[in-house]
Parts: sequence; structure tokens; C-alpha cells
Amino acid sequence: MCNCGCNQEPEQKTINVRQSLLAANKKLADENRLLIEKMGALAINMISSPGAGKTTLLEKTIELMDARIKIAVIEGDIETDRDAARIRAKGIPVVQITTGGACHLDANLIHRAIHQLQDEYRLNSLDLLIIENVGNLVCPAAFDLGEHQRIVLLSVPEGSDKPAKYPAAFAGSDYFMITKTDLMPYFDFKSQEAIQEAMQINPDLQVMELSATSGQGMDKWLNTIENIINT
Amino acid sequence: MCNCGCNQEPEQKTINVRQSLLAANKKLADENRLLIEKMGALAINMISSPGAGKTTLLEKTIELMDARIKIAVIEGDIETDRDAARIRAKGIPVVQITTGGACHLDANLIHRAIHQLQDEYRLNSLDLLIIENVGNLVCPAAFDLGEHQRIVLLSVPEGSDKPAKYPAAFAGSDYFMITKTDLMPYFDFKSQEAIQEAMQINPDLQVMELSATSGQGMDKWLNTIENIINT
Repeated sequence: MCNCGCNQEPEQKTINVRQSLLAANKKLADENRLLIEKMGALAINMISSPGAGKTTLLEKTIELMDARIKIAVIEGDIETDRDAARIRAKGIPVVQITTGGACHLDANLIHRAIHQLQDEYRLNSLDLLIIENVGNLVCPAAFDLGEHQRIVLLSVPEGSDKPAKYPAAFAGSDYFMITKTDLMPYFDFKSQEAIQEAMQINPDLQVMELSATSGQGMDKWLNTIENIINT
Repeated sequence: MCNCGCNQEPEQKTINVRQSLLAANKKLADENRLLIEKMGALAINMISSPGAGKTTLLEKTIELMDARIKIAVIEGDIETDRDAARIRAKGIPVVQITTGGACHLDANLIHRAIHQLQDEYRLNSLDLLIIENVGNLVCPAAFDLGEHQRIVLLSVPEGSDKPAKYPAAFAGSDYFMITKTDLMPYFDFKSQEAIQEAMQINPDLQVMELSATSGQGMDKWLNTIENIINT
């Protein structure tokens, strides 16, 4: 029937290389966790599509919490240091990782970024390290960076049907955050459906809904951060 | 300074495997192009983040063009066949590919999907094959599927700063489509900046702005399709 060379891809080899990369990544992620804990901090890894509002949420979080706790940020992007510039403007330590094409951060990149934070800012103690992953709801899910808590963000304009379509991001996260809730009136976003779908994938998910623009739901998020760093 | 195992990743090996995969993919993509042309059709590959409006645009396009031209669709998703069900409801041939975790379609998956279209729908002739890629602005950019034209979509809620942050998607596309323009009043989206950035990456990009919901700009898109299939 088909003589065009179907199934030419060396699938088994791809899987083996991937498994070995993931195992090496996991080992280094565990070392990162220890390194972060030695500074007295816990780390959060934020995962979402482009434009879900990670950087805006970070800006607001820093504004509201910076006086109380010591925060540092690692910014992941394919290209540009725009997000880091936005965070730097808030006056807190930030390191930019540009992956130059790669679709996710990995533990090796984070490892170097932690050392860079320590060197550039002479940073020895810290309460919270926030890692903003590359805007992508797929690849970042597979890579432990050494974080203590992982948050997957879904913005109202993206649509409530996304958890079942991108299950790995939800399966591997501790928190599910619905962002840009101030836009609910303009979109057919069904929160309950999104939450129900996400909980079917991962019943342990803790759910938050907020708008960094209007401030709605920010209290719960700030309390969550307090709880994370006090555990 | 650092004794924690930096740079453990076998980068060179990764690059070699990747190059060999991309070369095999390119070969099969060229075969796909011939296979599609044999049916009398041209193919469009649509790339965007999740929720940029690809499926809604497809629904509207089919409604407006189905009487005039023969369209078939290949739907790519990580999981679920929801998008295919939406297209199937319009009464046109559609094949769903679920990648089961992979962040992009590749030429091998498309090759099998074309055969499936031919077998299931006894499809021998066709004007237009539309491939809706996995929702992801990064990985799909690297994989030629055998399409004749590639369109990158960016929706107004995602923000106008995205072309420079995801350059590969723009570098490899023929068209840049700004979607959900009916939402401009609610977002700080600067069209001219987005277009300027995209054109700096790829001066040959043809730009379209439209809203599938309001119908604004759909005329130009339908004319573009007519031009594509008549070239």
C-alpha cells in the first residue's frame, strides 16, 4: 500500500537518549534542590503558554511581598531578556536564561543560573526563588529543575478545554492557577469544567483563580507563598 | 568554584541525533508534498500557542469556503480528539493525530495521516489540506511536514511582544496572522510593534489581521487561500 518510507524514524533510539537525558536531569535537579535549600530558600517553577501572564503576576507578587521576604528570579526565554528587564526594574536579583531555541529549561541551565545569582548578587540567603519557565505548555512538564513546588498557569483567553489537551503539565504540578479572571466577561471560559478536567488528571492539584491586573484572588496566592516558604 | 556536576549533558550527541532526525524528517516531508500534489492539493501548516484560535478559524473557513473548494484537515493534539470532532461536525474529511506527549507533529505522522485520509474517505482529489499543528510556538517550527505554506498565528491576548521571543516560528513561516482582533479594546496589543518585530526576523512574511468571531479581515484570508491553491 505505502512504499514511501513510513516509520523511518529510529523511535527506540530516540526514547533511549531521552530516558538517559531525563535521568541525568533528575540527578542534577536533586542537587539544585539542595543548593537552593542551603540558601534557606524554596523554589517555585512556573509553567504556562506564552502570554498567560507569568511575568505580570511576578511583577505584582514582588511589589506586594518584597518588603516581607527575599525573592530572586530566574527568567527562561527562547530569546530576548525582556522579562528579566521587567523584573530587574523591581530591584530584585534576577538572572536571564535564553535557551537559543530549546523549548524548555533544564536542571543544568538552572544550576548555572543559581551560581550566577550567587556570584553577581553575592546572594547567600534567600526565602523564595521563582523560576519562570519558557512559554510552552508541553516540554517544560518533563523537566524537574530542582523546584519544590510547580505551578501550571492557564489564562482565561486560552480556553477552558486545555487541561485534557495538555495533561502532562497538569499531572506534574502542585498548583493549578487560572489567570486573567478579570477577562471572564469577554470569554466563554468555564472555570468549573477546567478545574474538573485538571483534577481528573491530578486529584492533588490545589486550585487558585486570580487576576494580577484587578488584584482579585491575589490574597490567596500571597498566602500560598507564605505557606510554601514556611513549610 | 562549582563541583556539583555542571555540563553533564551530552550536548554534542544530542545535536547529532537531532540533525539526523531533522534530515530524515525533511526527506519524508518532500515525499508528503508530492503525495499531496498528486491529489491536486496544496497544504497549509498552522502553528500557534494553545488557544490562539486555530480551530475556530478553521470552522469559519470551512463554513465560508466548503461549497467552493474541497478541503480536508489533519488535526494535531497531544491528547483528545476534541478539535477533530469540531471539524468533523462541519462534514469534511478529518484525521486526528494524538502525539501522546510529543510537542509537535512530524512528517512521519503526517505521512500516515494522509494515507488514513485516502483510505477512510476514499479521497483521491482535493484542493486544500489544512494541518493544525500541536498548540506550541516552539517545537513545531523545526519540522517541515510537507506543507506548501506555513502560517504562524498570534492572538491579541498573548501580547504583541511575542515575535522576538519565539523567532523560529516567525522565521520559518510564509504568513503571520494576528487573530482575535475583536479583543483589541481589552488588551494593550500593539499591532505595529508585533508586525515590525516579525518583519525584522523575516522580511518576506505576509501579514493578516482578523477575527473569526466578528468576521473582520476574513475576506483577505479567504482571498489568500484562493491565491495559494491557484498558484
